[in-house]
Amino acid sequence: MRQSTLFTKTRREDPAYEESVNARLLIRAGFVHKEMAGVYTLLPLGLRVFNKIIGIIREEMNAIGGQEMLMTTLQDPELWKKSNRWVEEGEKNPNGLPWFKTKLVNGNELGIANTHEETLTNILCQHVSSYRDLPLYAYQFQNKFRNELRAKSGIMRAREFVMKDLYSFSKTEEQFREFYEECAKAYLRVFDRLGLGNRTYRTFASGGAFSKFSDEFQTLSEAGEDTIYILKEKNLAINKEVFTDEVLSDMKVRREDFEEHKSIEVGNIFPLGTKYSQALGLLYRTEDGEDKPVIMGSYGIGVGRAMGTIVEALHDEKGIVWPSSVAPFAVHLVALQGGEEEAEKLYKRLKEQGTEVLYDDRIDVAPGAKFADSDLLGIPARVVVSTKTVADKQAEVKKRTSETLERVSLENMPKFFF
Amino acid sequence: MRQSTLFTKTRREDPAYEESVNARLLIRAGFVHKEMAGVYTLLPLGLRVFNKIIGIIREEMNAIGGQEMLMTTLQDPELWKKSNRWVEEGEKNPNGLPWFKTKLVNGNELGIANTHEETLTNILCQHVSSYRDLPLYAYQFQNKFRNELRAKSGIMRAREFVMKDLYSFSKTEEQFREFYEECAKAYLRVFDRLGLGNRTYRTFASGGAFSKFSDEFQTLSEAGEDTIYILKEKNLAINKEVFTDEVLSDMKVRREDFEEHKSIEVGNIFPLGTKYSQALGLLYRTEDGEDKPVIMGSYGIGVGRAMGTIVEALHDEKGIVWPSSVAPFAVHLVALQGGEEEAEKLYKRLKEQGTEVLYDDRIDVAPGAKFADSDLLGIPARVVVSTKTVADKQAEVKKRTSETLERVSLENMPKFFF
Repeated sequence: MRQSTLFTKTRREDPAYEESVNARLLIRAGFVHKEMAGVYTLLPLGLRVFNKIIGIIREEMNAIGGQEMLMTTLQDPELWKKSNRWVEEGEKNPNGLPWFKTKLVNGNELGIANTHEETLTNILCQHVSSYRDLPLYAYQFQNKFRNELRAKSGIMRAREFVMKDLYSFSKTEEQFREFYEECAKAYLRVFDRLGLGNRTYRTFASGGAFSKFSDEFQTLSEAGEDTIYILKEKNLAINKEVFTDEVLSDMKVRREDFEEHKSIEVGNIFPLGTKYSQALGLLYRTEDGEDKPVIMGSYGIGVGRAMGTIVEALHDEKGIVWPSSVAPFAVHLVALQGGEEEAEKLYKRLKEQGTEVLYDDRIDVAPGAKFADSDLLGIPARVVVSTKTVADKQAEVKKRTSETLERVSLENMPKFFF
Repeated sequence: MRQSTLFTKTRREDPAYEESVNARLLIRAGFVHKEMAGVYTLLPLGLRVFNKIIGIIREEMNAIGGQEMLMTTLQDPELWKKSNRWVEEGEKNPNGLPWFKTKLVNGNELGIANTHEETLTNILCQHVSSYRDLPLYAYQFQNKFRNELRAKSGIMRAREFVMKDLYSFSKTEEQFREFYEECAKAYLRVFDRLGLGNRTYRTFASGGAFSKFSDEFQTLSEAGEDTIYILKEKNLAINKEVFTDEVLSDMKVRREDFEEHKSIEVGNIFPLGTKYSQALGLLYRTEDGEDKPVIMGSYGIGVGRAMGTIVEALHDEKGIVWPSSVAPFAVHLVALQGGEEEAEKLYKRLKEQGTEVLYDDRIDVAPGAKFADSDLLGIPARVVVSTKTVADKQAEVKKRTSETLERVSLENMPKFFF
């Protein structure tokens, strides 16, 4: 894409109204626009990153048998009354937040979805009746709306955000546990592919409303709202809320061997038991002709939070540093004065072979400003074509993560990125 | 995909609560689930079709220079007060419907987006300042929420639906008109690729709140809520609301040459002039140093409505008939008794070459029920492997749109679909 046609512009200064590093950088670089606290529009560059994150999660969910669907934002209160999760004004949901509600013209109240357990369980009453229909795994990428009191962590804690939520439906506890472990492994693959592998831990946590324990995936970062304790050599992590003598003794580990870290919860998986299947009547007939409630589990990853976490974890003082798996483009091709003609040719050749290139073809911008923009945008490789490099029939390549400049011949450049 | 693992089931009977043909068929075939009137979940097969429609629209919008982004559902009323489109309870929007509203914990009202002109115009105030920044074309696929009084046309008129909305920003009326015509052509390509080309007309219509005239794209269908008049030989169509003597005389055509038809509005494009750019202060500096409001246009296609229209226009008494461009799978491979082993091999070979196959590997289902399901699902080609066909080292191919059965050797089958 030609940068001269990209409709967003970068900014030199941090927006005064943003506290979080992720939102400051993403706004300066033109990836997002803040509509209000906790509500962000994805601009073209931001949407490219967002969709790449979705693509990685989708691949891993499909690989463990997930079937993608798309539920709705508008919710019928009757469904939520069955599980006692419809609460009146001033009261809170089990997730600790009040509902966003709205009304039909006839005055009937509707909910604005903060999660989808009830909805999916109800849908499956139409499609599941026998042990032969289980197990099944359904997921979606859909907006969640949470009426946060304060929203000051940028895109990491939003009032409106896209979540990948997968739900598992199993016959037996054993069948459920088998998938639960499969999904935990898939989550580690996701965070690995997102460039967060070396700092993300499967973390022992409390089970909340549903069971005694659950698992969180926590990425070490000073911007995190959580505190975890890690034991690196055993690859073990425990959330502060369950870092108790009892748990430590169960695990046969010593408190003093752990390090304390701030961290960001980038994913969680937890057992739901039969809470929703019983409340909504999702039963299956066993091989023996008995009717039993389906055993459920829930598996979430916030897409915006993952994106914000990548920015928090990998940025430097000059700007964002995208891992190549989610970068909006693979190459930032920068034409300086005298290099325009060769840059133009190179742009075409790179595009022809399918390399994703942002081409800085702007004519009235000084080299220093172009370099600053390039660092801010965080594209993995910068390729500069100038009078000087053209004289040697070369271009200058620099990785975003390195200070080393490398000369590569114009002729070989496409091969370099293939 | 193996049909035995697909979590949705088909139904023999029409759901009693649905009036529209599109929703009846889509529910029976397991493509959608009705949450409430005008609110539908997309089940896995439905989402596959939906995403293919989105893919086609996206390609055509990118081809005319559209830059994709993603705006938000939650809206700050302050923005909408600037253009006088924030209305109090009981009052209606210019689109004729009241807002869905909600509230933050602190009691502040928020809007739930029914459109995004104000939002995008406001965002662009940060990014557009000079004639050099124009023209620009931004679009999204995003939920719209419309508080319809009655919603009984299935997925064609929903309270919650995904719309592709593109907005154009131009310097001059001439620049605007040039893009407007480009986009009209792109729309015809979209409807052509969706299999609706031969029954979709660019239709002269009233401009609503913004200008005297606009263009609608109307697909002939008895299920339509609109009435249009068409003059086939001139490829001319006029919406009933502007089918007046004045318009006819302007166009130099005679009333009696037109045929009346019911139709579905599958797209619309219209000039916005400077209504929003003036209200929200989106100005650009001209070459002469003058500050002028940007000239805008709006271009919409409802994704669910397009999907419903395809069902309405192309179904038959046995079920849905998907055009191959948007079909959930290219091939429905059906194994009958004695054909399982060869079907299994064929499934693998087709998948290996990248053909999208739904493989009916269910063991306890009678041939008649499998055929009925296949017709209901509407996949373009059905391939049956049975004892009889295997004896001849063949399979039986039937197109959804034809009654002819064709025998193809098992060996050549992958080539047949490549």
